[in-house]
Amino acid sequence: MFRLILPSIALLLIICSNRHSAVVSAIGFSIVGYIATDWLIPRVGQSFVKIGLYGKDQSKPGKPVIPESVGAVSATVYLLVMFLCIPFMFYKYMVTTTPGGGIRGASIEENGDLTGNLFPHGKLSEYLSSILCLESTSLLGIADDLFDLRWRHKFFLPAIGAIPLLIVYYVDFGATHVLVPTFVQPWVKMTNIDLGWMYYAYMVSMTIFCPNSINILAGINGLEVGQSIVLGILALINDALYLAMGPNASWESHRFSAVIILPFLGVSAALWKWNRWPAKVFVGDTYCYFAGMVFAVVGILGHFSKTMLLLFLPQIFNFVYSCPQLFNLVPCPRHRLPRFNDADWLLYPSRANLKDEPPKAFFKPILRVLHKLKLIDLEFEGDKIVSCTNMTLINLALVWFGPMREDKLCNLLLVLQFFIGIAAILTRHALGLLLFGHDNLWAIV
Amino acid sequence: MFRLILPSIALLLIICSNRHSAVVSAIGFSIVGYIATDWLIPRVGQSFVKIGLYGKDQSKPGKPVIPESVGAVSATVYLLVMFLCIPFMFYKYMVTTTPGGGIRGASIEENGDLTGNLFPHGKLSEYLSSILCLESTSLLGIADDLFDLRWRHKFFLPAIGAIPLLIVYYVDFGATHVLVPTFVQPWVKMTNIDLGWMYYAYMVSMTIFCPNSINILAGINGLEVGQSIVLGILALINDALYLAMGPNASWESHRFSAVIILPFLGVSAALWKWNRWPAKVFVGDTYCYFAGMVFAVVGILGHFSKTMLLLFLPQIFNFVYSCPQLFNLVPCPRHRLPRFNDADWLLYPSRANLKDEPPKAFFKPILRVLHKLKLIDLEFEGDKIVSCTNMTLINLALVWFGPMREDKLCNLLLVLQFFIGIAAILTRHALGLLLFGHDNLWAIV
Repeated sequence: MFRLILPSIALLLIICSNRHSAVVSAIGFSIVGYIATDWLIPRVGQSFVKIGLYGKDQSKPGKPVIPESVGAVSATVYLLVMFLCIPFMFYKYMVTTTPGGGIRGASIEENGDLTGNLFPHGKLSEYLSSILCLESTSLLGIADDLFDLRWRHKFFLPAIGAIPLLIVYYVDFGATHVLVPTFVQPWVKMTNIDLGWMYYAYMVSMTIFCPNSINILAGINGLEVGQSIVLGILALINDALYLAMGPNASWESHRFSAVIILPFLGVSAALWKWNRWPAKVFVGDTYCYFAGMVFAVVGILGHFSKTMLLLFLPQIFNFVYSCPQLFNLVPCPRHRLPRFNDADWLLYPSRANLKDEPPKAFFKPILRVLHKLKLIDLEFEGDKIVSCTNMTLINLALVWFGPMREDKLCNLLLVLQFFIGIAAILTRHALGLLLFGHDNLWAIV
Repeated sequence: MFRLILPSIALLLIICSNRHSAVVSAIGFSIVGYIATDWLIPRVGQSFVKIGLYGKDQSKPGKPVIPESVGAVSATVYLLVMFLCIPFMFYKYMVTTTPGGGIRGASIEENGDLTGNLFPHGKLSEYLSSILCLESTSLLGIADDLFDLRWRHKFFLPAIGAIPLLIVYYVDFGATHVLVPTFVQPWVKMTNIDLGWMYYAYMVSMTIFCPNSINILAGINGLEVGQSIVLGILALINDALYLAMGPNASWESHRFSAVIILPFLGVSAALWKWNRWPAKVFVGDTYCYFAGMVFAVVGILGHFSKTMLLLFLPQIFNFVYSCPQLFNLVPCPRHRLPRFNDADWLLYPSRANLKDEPPKAFFKPILRVLHKLKLIDLEFEGDKIVSCTNMTLINLALVWFGPMREDKLCNLLLVLQFFIGIAAILTRHALGLLLFGHDNLWAIV
């Protein structure tokens, strides 16, 4: 029954979208993406294992072997769906402006003098460069999954995938101005400032940060996909706010964002079904890169990259919190996954041994302060520090809320991500009002 | 010395291109592609072997194991180079038309009223959709190399990769008219005919044919890359003819074609260096698909797909010639590679055993005719056919010219391809004059 209803709804939405918004067809294609991914994953899993793409699930009794890198299926289906989406996104322009016979329709300038019955080539190249960027990121993610690249190589990998996006941004938009907060304006005597190449450096760091931050906040079943889905929903809520209450000028950006994110949610939901506890497949680096890049692309081309970064607060916290171990101020074991206890099937915080390998001397007092603030759990032998919990958000959650089962832990982190995101969206619009004298949502000057 | 000169020339060409044609920068990037591919291949080869991507070279003593699917390196470098090429292709438009501050430059209509100082978004989306198509094709080729897809699946694979191209063609151009030959015009009473969806079917078959035909004409060291290089050079010669002597209207198409093909020749030349006899790497299906799609893309978007098919005459012959075995009228062994003779290191035509598995009865007389025409070599026992040479162009060359060493055979086939192509280009323009009353090269009406 469900098998028939879902495709029918998808078909209906896609057909009806012609007369309405591209967002409607994106919802339809999101369902198509869900169905296709859900159908493919169990069918290709064994082929992945056969060519050596498998991993051991460390937090299960017996450490079962399951397919790894299955996120590549989601990414591939997503790309195909986005191709098929193109005619529906440009339907209303297409019919009126391709007269055939080799005569190409003219283009419109956004908010320009020519009116909207001409073909928006600029929008098409924006859309194509986004897909190109996501496809390149997936390709590099697959290379990483296959060849197990070194950490220092893979860290910068997403930036290579982002090249098409940045280059199209460069030749096609070239906007590198940011608004100056009201209270700084009298002091610097300008309302906006041209960051020039620094704006590109900022965009590059965004494309490196988003994928890697999702890749780092990982290690328990369903967390990579789960956080991506929550991030997607939060971004959609932000888009919905703008589409419902924002000024007309911002509609295009947020419609674009919704069209990119909706099919992403579809393919991710199907992957979540197979990756959530108890996981039947692993997602692999491909998915983390791909998912992170979806948000980077939307943030950059939708011109709300700062809001996007606010949604990544838990990931940012996780990264900053990890730094002492990443930079070897505190010894960093090979894996920092929570420790699975065979006896009660619960996860306990994993610990770094500080007895044999002591932390840097100047960092010891800081560790004690963190321990006092309950941001870490230290184990003492007399006055000497013997071990500390590994510095990841996952372990911290276990320190705070005690040992728990893997799925409960994942859900806890996802709920946390959701509410922090909601708070961030509210704060952002309140702060916008405070810093710039107006917020672009309510358009109060 | 050579190591310094080559990068310097590339740099010089790329820098100088700003004031000249995009073709100049494409030559520069072609050298960059060559250097990068040539640097990468020996460094990544062992990683390919490690993850199971290797093959046995059947036509060498001892059948050495060498890396397979290394064409993926060429494809990846090509895509990166094409990304970096974008600003140089659009340099002259970019500087004058992106005023910054979020104001997007207007677009021009080709041959339209607005003059050339506005940004050509239409061209950018054309370019982006080509790269997208080539990247999708490479991705599917990699999937094929990894998972060893079934023949009936992989045959249609390139068509999936071509979806972005066809969809952008659909929304952005939509031209489905073809010219009617002069002598038919009075009869059908029109000068051109709208093929509608049949034109799309034609384009799809082109994207299926080109990659697969290169994939089928394979099996000896260097042949896949070699024929692609020859095809590329032939297409460039055709482009050069148009750019030098053709009407202005065709310049854009042939400049586009040259810009796509030049970097392709760069990455292919590097691959050829490693894949030619005695091969140190195999190219894999990825390369065949990718190379075939380059020609399909250029033919379709450059609007000279029929000329392109003429260049593929040896591939078309090879396909038609293979049909009796492909459709099992004559038994088809698992491999149809020429037989390597350990004693004299020469290749001999391989044969299908017709004693145990006789061909279809109605086909026997045809085999005898083909034997008479020297298009096949039959072996008799009395009056009974015992075996026949396998029906591939490679075996046919061995039947005609006698056993020879692998590299000589490859060179022979490449020279054949080149001269047939040159003849085809000449014939095409002579025929154009004959069929349409004028040829678009000399623009004689």
